Amino acid sequence: MKIHHVGIAVKSLGAAVPLFERLLGRAPDPENVIKEQKVRVATFNLGQARIELLEPTAADSPLALFLGKRGEGVHHVALAVPDLPRVLAELEQAGVRLIDREPGTGAGKERMAFLHPASTAGVLIELVEEK
Amino acid sequence: MKIHHVGIAVKSLGAAVPLFERLLGRAPDPENVIKEQKVRVATFNLGQARIELLEPTAADSPLALFLGKRGEGVHHVALAVPDLPRVLAELEQAGVRLIDREPGTGAGKERMAFLHPASTAGVLIELVEEK
Repeated sequence: MKIHHVGIAVKSLGAAVPLFERLLGRAPDPENVIKEQKVRVATFNLGQARIELLEPTAADSPLALFLGKRGEGVHHVALAVPDLPRVLAELEQAGVRLIDREPGTGAGKERMAFLHPASTAGVLIELVEEK
Repeated sequence: MKIHHVGIAVKSLGAAVPLFERLLGRAPDPENVIKEQKVRVATFNLGQARIELLEPTAADSPLALFLGKRGEGVHHVALAVPDLPRVLAELEQAGVRLIDREPGTGAGKERMAFLHPASTAGVLIELVEEK
């Protein structure tokens, strides 16, 4: 298992992208929108892993609620796994609380699922299937 | 620039380490204490990057204050840079607010410095020198 990306909640990609361009010394991939999750994403591909900046596209989205409660900052940490349904079944068996029992579709069209932060020291963990 | 590690604030390594062992499918390196920062660290080396679980060793430490205010969760994201003093000088020149203007020593004895979250969308970013 390895780190796939770190997702950062931001109020505005227009403000945050230039900050991270300066910090990371590169431009992000073209922005894309994940309709299911009501987020617009700017991805900085660092080779071994990615940093995703996430801006809500609707005021009633989970990300907008997160920003209202916690402010900008790290929203989730994604880990790459080879076989997502098997890993989800094993974790559930071991007592880990899942948010998604069935995989959905992530920013890069991969299959993904979230674990509940109550089982993972307050960290929202996304599992991304990477064959 | 690449992700060096993700640092997670936990109340108790005794509770958090077994959770992450199950999730990551491996044991951490032997725990070590960073006296300057008053933290005890359990590091899971995932090859391309690491996950560090951080437990405060004193009630007046910055990490204990963070836990009191925000609860458990991601504390910082560390990026590897080749030449830390040069990068710090460039970022300061570009208007990024620094916490450490001079490098200190991190968990793995590397030189490191923190940037101020006000300049980086609420994310506490650590720069770790990796030659």
